[in-house]
Amino acid sequence: MKNIAILGSTGSIGKNTLEVISRHRDKFRVTALAVKNNVSILEEQIAEFKPDVVAVFDEAAAGRLRKKNPSVKILSGEQGMIDVATLDGVETVVSAIVGSPGLVPTLEAIKAGKDIALATKEALVMAGHLVMSEALKRGVSIIPVDSEHSAVFQCLEGRDMEEVEKIVLTASGGPFLKKSVQELMNVTPAEALNHPNWNMGKKISIDSATLMNKGLEVIEARWLFNIPVEKIGVILHPQSIIHSMVRFIDGSVIAQMSVPDMKGPISYALSYPERFSNVLPPLNLAEIKELTFEDPDINKYPALALTYNALNAGGTMPCVMNAANEIAVEAFLSEKISFTKISRVVSDTMAEHKVMKGNTIEEIISASEWAKQRAGEFVDKN
Amino acid sequence: MKNIAILGSTGSIGKNTLEVISRHRDKFRVTALAVKNNVSILEEQIAEFKPDVVAVFDEAAAGRLRKKNPSVKILSGEQGMIDVATLDGVETVVSAIVGSPGLVPTLEAIKAGKDIALATKEALVMAGHLVMSEALKRGVSIIPVDSEHSAVFQCLEGRDMEEVEKIVLTASGGPFLKKSVQELMNVTPAEALNHPNWNMGKKISIDSATLMNKGLEVIEARWLFNIPVEKIGVILHPQSIIHSMVRFIDGSVIAQMSVPDMKGPISYALSYPERFSNVLPPLNLAEIKELTFEDPDINKYPALALTYNALNAGGTMPCVMNAANEIAVEAFLSEKISFTKISRVVSDTMAEHKVMKGNTIEEIISASEWAKQRAGEFVDKN
Repeated sequence: MKNIAILGSTGSIGKNTLEVISRHRDKFRVTALAVKNNVSILEEQIAEFKPDVVAVFDEAAAGRLRKKNPSVKILSGEQGMIDVATLDGVETVVSAIVGSPGLVPTLEAIKAGKDIALATKEALVMAGHLVMSEALKRGVSIIPVDSEHSAVFQCLEGRDMEEVEKIVLTASGGPFLKKSVQELMNVTPAEALNHPNWNMGKKISIDSATLMNKGLEVIEARWLFNIPVEKIGVILHPQSIIHSMVRFIDGSVIAQMSVPDMKGPISYALSYPERFSNVLPPLNLAEIKELTFEDPDINKYPALALTYNALNAGGTMPCVMNAANEIAVEAFLSEKISFTKISRVVSDTMAEHKVMKGNTIEEIISASEWAKQRAGEFVDKN
Repeated sequence: MKNIAILGSTGSIGKNTLEVISRHRDKFRVTALAVKNNVSILEEQIAEFKPDVVAVFDEAAAGRLRKKNPSVKILSGEQGMIDVATLDGVETVVSAIVGSPGLVPTLEAIKAGKDIALATKEALVMAGHLVMSEALKRGVSIIPVDSEHSAVFQCLEGRDMEEVEKIVLTASGGPFLKKSVQELMNVTPAEALNHPNWNMGKKISIDSATLMNKGLEVIEARWLFNIPVEKIGVILHPQSIIHSMVRFIDGSVIAQMSVPDMKGPISYALSYPERFSNVLPPLNLAEIKELTFEDPDINKYPALALTYNALNAGGTMPCVMNAANEIAVEAFLSEKISFTKISRVVSDTMAEHKVMKGNTIEEIISASEWAKQRAGEFVDKN
């Protein structure tokens, strides 16, 4: 019986994780849950999974929940998140908090020796070197939950990294694959949220439309697989059937495919090194008929170039890019800026950043705060 | 330095094997070569690779070669093939003799404890249970050289066979993919030999056009991976980029891809468990643009159904199917029968066969001889 804590249990990944666990009650126990503020869904999860501890980031929401559930231990604030992440007896922490707030709890979980099923890519985007060196030091496994990284992880399993020539991440191209650069100027949040293949949260849906999500995944892959950035490529593959691939030095490519459903990578992260049966329906390629591929157009997806620039600049730059993007996406969702302005805000913020090494979590958080502030000003100037 | 013997060195696989070896002279020594009758190419190979021993199956051709090369040890006949296959000091035998004559030398090589790089699928089609139990007994590795089985082998590497739900072999569909069943009646040998993706020998090119080649590969996979026939599927994939795939119990599919070039699987069979660098050019999916898939039409490709029937009948039936097919393909190539008649000759021969267990090589060879005789009669009756 493995004890699991889920950071972000009411989000898309969190809910899918609980669904996978509910089919394997003999193998897993949900020991703790942490959420931002959605206490109505959390209440249902408490009733179904009976965790020992829950945490709600939002103090007011935590207060409301405490009144209605006097028998459950309910923590709150950032310390509540950290307490759940480091709880005694928990073996695996599913890290699925959206965005930069996921960094500190994830890092604390690693320091506490917990294995990580990692969906919060920001932990690696913001502080990849810190997170990975800490994981190495503590002998902690970090199993990716992203479909792309899970694919790479599965393709690399049992193989020698020295023989890897390239990791190629696939990208659906999002809802605007067929739109011109010109047409992108006037797209609405509703259009941008309408992802063709994946049903995801808002932030990641917008990031998929700009391809910033793929850029963040490039950074994540760089750290997760300890591979230089020039060995990571991106290809557009609108059907989202091949989730990513690895090319070896002999020219042989190993790819991982499935129907697009997050329960696949979530299940693998929990079952690894084994596999659970009947997680996803069998892939029927004859029914799908064709898989198509194209190189991404950098003029249309400037976010992709920004991420390569950020990785090459190193230090705090990826963290700054990520923070500026969070502000810009929020501004787009609340219709303060246009879709194409998202990348502009990010690149303007990056242009003003003086790169620091980012060897402490404080330096990283301060760079992130600076970038949010500065990006907010660029939004307001709009 | 690994000592290599090649059975069938002047065929397509043999020549490609020597090309791979010529790039890795520091790792391999060509100790022995065996061919059917092509002594002019063999002479060039002797000059370039300086083997200790060669064998020519055809006695007259061997005699001609002996006169011109008095300093080389030149064996002949079936015993010559066996002597090369079992030569002292050889570690790996590349088994690449076309068709049923490859069986006995391959089996003898296994008995002599040689690792096998296996291209001669007939060894497993005719006597899979004998060959595999012998290999198990001697602790011999059998590494597939077929692109499909090499793909499956690469996808399975390091993974638990218990977690395999299905092996899916891809088939290009051959040159007649777009032709109707009606149109197939009048196709010529020249048209059938014109394979869209692979440059191969005549026999295998015709087998690719009928899909009998894929059927033989299903049988080969059954033995090579010790997997029940109902877990082996076939899908048409005209571009021959995905060479085969494995579906696991969780719905995750691992696929192997590359540009279609036999040097890929040959190189892997020689370098395994490592990989050589720069064997094939990098796969550029954006340039290829699309990969398509369809289920094979059994009315158009009856050979595929025959092979499943043969496996289900078991014992000597796959061997009989293979032998009858060899005769039928020869008859088609010499324009004695039509293209669609190939499968008819095979199925008529199979219908008359009384299945034996095939527990001895003698029983298998006698079933094969019977089938060739009977298939010849069906050809003549045409």
